[in-house]
Amino acid sequence: IYAHKILTGRKDRFHTLRQKDGLSGFCQPYESPYDEFTAGHASTSIAAALGAAIARDRKQQQHKVIAVIGDGAMTGGLAYEALNNLGQQGTDMLIVLNDNEMSIARNVGAITRIFTRLITHNFYNIAKEDLEEFVRRFARRLGTRLVKFTQRVEESLKGLIVPGIFFEEMGIRYIGPVDGNDLPQLISMLNKVKGLRGPRLLHILTKKGKGYLPAEEQPEKFHSAPPFVIETGETKKSELTYTQVFGKALCELAQQDKRIVAITAAMTEGTGLREFAERFPERFFDVGIAEACAVTLAAGMARSGLKPVVCIYSTFLQRAYDQIIHDVALQHLPVVFAIDRAGIVGQDGPTHHGMFDLSYLRLIPGMTIMAPKDDVELRSMLYSVLSQERYGPVAIRYPRGKSPGLSAALPPGEFKSIPWGKAELVSEGEGGIILAVGHFVETALKTAELLRKAGIGIAVANMRFVKPLDEAFLRWVAETYEYIFSLEDNTVVGGFGSGVNEFFTSENFNRRHCILLGFPDRFVEHGKPSELYEQYGLTPEHLSELIRTHILYPSQSMLNRNLQKKVHASVPHQSDKLS
Amino acid sequence: IYAHKILTGRKDRFHTLRQKDGLSGFCQPYESPYDEFTAGHASTSIAAALGAAIARDRKQQQHKVIAVIGDGAMTGGLAYEALNNLGQQGTDMLIVLNDNEMSIARNVGAITRIFTRLITHNFYNIAKEDLEEFVRRFARRLGTRLVKFTQRVEESLKGLIVPGIFFEEMGIRYIGPVDGNDLPQLISMLNKVKGLRGPRLLHILTKKGKGYLPAEEQPEKFHSAPPFVIETGETKKSELTYTQVFGKALCELAQQDKRIVAITAAMTEGTGLREFAERFPERFFDVGIAEACAVTLAAGMARSGLKPVVCIYSTFLQRAYDQIIHDVALQHLPVVFAIDRAGIVGQDGPTHHGMFDLSYLRLIPGMTIMAPKDDVELRSMLYSVLSQERYGPVAIRYPRGKSPGLSAALPPGEFKSIPWGKAELVSEGEGGIILAVGHFVETALKTAELLRKAGIGIAVANMRFVKPLDEAFLRWVAETYEYIFSLEDNTVVGGFGSGVNEFFTSENFNRRHCILLGFPDRFVEHGKPSELYEQYGLTPEHLSELIRTHILYPSQSMLNRNLQKKVHASVPHQSDKLS
Repeated sequence: IYAHKILTGRKDRFHTLRQKDGLSGFCQPYESPYDEFTAGHASTSIAAALGAAIARDRKQQQHKVIAVIGDGAMTGGLAYEALNNLGQQGTDMLIVLNDNEMSIARNVGAITRIFTRLITHNFYNIAKEDLEEFVRRFARRLGTRLVKFTQRVEESLKGLIVPGIFFEEMGIRYIGPVDGNDLPQLISMLNKVKGLRGPRLLHILTKKGKGYLPAEEQPEKFHSAPPFVIETGETKKSELTYTQVFGKALCELAQQDKRIVAITAAMTEGTGLREFAERFPERFFDVGIAEACAVTLAAGMARSGLKPVVCIYSTFLQRAYDQIIHDVALQHLPVVFAIDRAGIVGQDGPTHHGMFDLSYLRLIPGMTIMAPKDDVELRSMLYSVLSQERYGPVAIRYPRGKSPGLSAALPPGEFKSIPWGKAELVSEGEGGIILAVGHFVETALKTAELLRKAGIGIAVANMRFVKPLDEAFLRWVAETYEYIFSLEDNTVVGGFGSGVNEFFTSENFNRRHCILLGFPDRFVEHGKPSELYEQYGLTPEHLSELIRTHILYPSQSMLNRNLQKKVHASVPHQSDKLS
Repeated sequence: IYAHKILTGRKDRFHTLRQKDGLSGFCQPYESPYDEFTAGHASTSIAAALGAAIARDRKQQQHKVIAVIGDGAMTGGLAYEALNNLGQQGTDMLIVLNDNEMSIARNVGAITRIFTRLITHNFYNIAKEDLEEFVRRFARRLGTRLVKFTQRVEESLKGLIVPGIFFEEMGIRYIGPVDGNDLPQLISMLNKVKGLRGPRLLHILTKKGKGYLPAEEQPEKFHSAPPFVIETGETKKSELTYTQVFGKALCELAQQDKRIVAITAAMTEGTGLREFAERFPERFFDVGIAEACAVTLAAGMARSGLKPVVCIYSTFLQRAYDQIIHDVALQHLPVVFAIDRAGIVGQDGPTHHGMFDLSYLRLIPGMTIMAPKDDVELRSMLYSVLSQERYGPVAIRYPRGKSPGLSAALPPGEFKSIPWGKAELVSEGEGGIILAVGHFVETALKTAELLRKAGIGIAVANMRFVKPLDEAFLRWVAETYEYIFSLEDNTVVGGFGSGVNEFFTSENFNRRHCILLGFPDRFVEHGKPSELYEQYGLTPEHLSELIRTHILYPSQSMLNRNLQKKVHASVPHQSDKLS
């Protein structure tokens, strides 16, 4: 996709990549006519392209429609559903299967074996990896010239077997595999394929990071690379992240309870499960890019007495929404959802922000939803759930990036419980209260500090539980405070604050309202989290100013609305950009 | 599943099937130890069973795990994801593929062709249907004895080809096909399969409705059968449903605009699309049980200038949640979601009620959500969207069952617009106002009538739009009324009423609250809609009493909460039933 952007007129702006107001890291139609469809989540291309091809035929147009899909994305059910329909429709369309033998993590499942079988040769009885290792060793001794020769021999031998029966069975003509890094050969093949009609699939083999040796050797590390030293490819050091703290804590708990198993959907590194996967390989399940399968698999395990922990990013958990409702919650099964990348993820932008989960999980009956204020509390929450014998569906959501790092000092295996279902008053004050969720407790404390300097004492609560709400605490809040503010790194639509207002209404606290602070009802663009918090008024400076005005001038305070209006006015909506 | 229930100790209670407090129409673990897993949505069984089999192995137990799946459910991506992982894991488990050559509607896609190929024979060059027709004609002349002989010949010929390469490619051993209606043969085969180990699939062919001729001949009609005359199989006449009104209106609009296409996911009959499918076959797409594919396909079409209408039940739309957010809403594409079965569906129960869609759609930026008060308004809403040239994602949601039938008198092709984004005051009153959504406008009017008799004048609004809210109207409401009640056939968590309160908060109407009336935060059991409305206090009688008490005794009125408490106390939660 980066090469695509450079080749389609965005070379001059490429230095703005993934920066605020700069190029997006993904396909974005508003950015270029060459970006036909927004793509940030995997497995969507065949279905979207089939739609475009059907539209072309309906409108009696003549252009070609091509879907490009990675081998990893082929593990997703949506890709299969679309293949199935393409084969049935017989629509004229080309799929380019870019097979670099990895998605976000190594590929998973039988479908990978099918691909592997396509590109190995039974007579050899040598696994492809062995062959490549063999080739690589030769390369060091004999230079690249011979390697290319050896590779060509390998390629031609591959051609001997009849491949692609999986696709042919689906009614899709299979062509390949061809070396996708051999540009003249690829272009020649694409020209040939152009002449064919009907559903076709061209299987190309590419080398991830081709041309940059550190990336070739450590493809997973370089899939979504942080800044690194170009000479060596070593990443610059970072601090303790929530992801790391979670991964470590889960290993410690798994050591103590054999029923704990971990499931992810091609996010082993991203969710911090590498150590777990190595220490407990028989209790670790990476199902591929197949979130729906991950959740229903967990439901089956929970029903049979295991304690599954499903580790999926907030944005990708949307892909398993019905499975959470229908397969887990309806049976009130003990499945823990460890939701990484909740809130703003930063430079990946609107396809990857996790700003909906509090809302879409909160409406599910019987869900428990927690958010830790720091890394120590993340450990405590995980422990508090998994040390119970009976629990239902539980979500623990935490952000991308570094944590306060307080857990670094704790001895391994030592955990504290949190008081179940209880909020915590972390700072006192008479003038009002901020009900804060997760890492925004820190933001709330800084806000309260600024307000204190301005002569306003405001209390801060660490809510811990978004569902069920700490009702006794909220009753006390409603009886004590006139000015109540909710603060969450989630959309305000149907989120935590909305839940607090629902509670006040149901309890007939008619004179109490919670002012909702969080992200407004729009998709949030990419940019550094600090830039986005600034833009959406979610910094201590903006928040303290807003709260101060609201308390000092309540009668005329349309501030909340005006702030949001301002935000709306300053940022074009995705749809505006499209027009 | 019905036969399963009768055979597993529920024969005596079978007459209570799908009735309130009676047997569920689906697998329910709380009902019997023989119902291992809740199952109402398709394609889940392989993933859930794989979870159970992994748990068995972890716990070193010895029992067998068997997943039963229909051929229709095999079109769902979740089934494929699970097959893929089963093949990879190599877990000891049997899948019984019950192939009756239909799911809810006819099977769709390449996967069906694979099955069909498995059970036809190339040497014949006769399609299976022809062969069966041939066999059936012979039967009439020669009696059943010869038919059986002919069938046996057919079976053995099928056995000559090597079937199941699709599954074998996935690493799953294929056995079959066998005649699933031939019990001795089936039992013998199951005994043989029992002795094998590893991932296996037994492909059985069954006849839908076997033994009851009208059902054999019209399998789709009898899939979910309304009351019928046993002698002839003819259904008893029903009145004009929302589903029928929608299907007819869409045909009329499609006649006028060639860009309109309809997409469904194995719900052709259920969403009223039969006529559309027949009149506009090249503009009709049934993608199989593949909701995710339906939505992304629509996104691709919309991007290319078509006007897709996606017709999916409220409960099944949950299966395409990420596709709505990521593939449609993020690009603000013009996709119309015609959401049938919204609210309470009745006897299908908690797996099928559509009581979450207002909440899970409302949180998506840029969505428009409408609910018509009657069938004429359903026509008007559909027309108002599709006659526009530019629109974004639009959901129109309406309930199962009969409509007021007002549209029967309208001439075909005649449509009226609704005022876009505007609520409608349908009844005046000084004492308060009910803000009602969809067909609950009628309930609200009846409630107001009862209150009027009790001396309280209450206004009723038909909100039409759940998103965006009619803000000008709500400002007037907040300035005019002290007692404001929202009424929706959706969970009150994050629903329409919650949105009204969010608006009041953002506008600083600090002294205004909307009392939320709707379904409480729990899964609702099966039963007739009228029984469920009665139980949850959503009848005019209950509602008028609640509102009256609230208005007359506001200071002590904890009524709303108490009502919900009472409801909670009277109905055990699913999880309680499990324990």
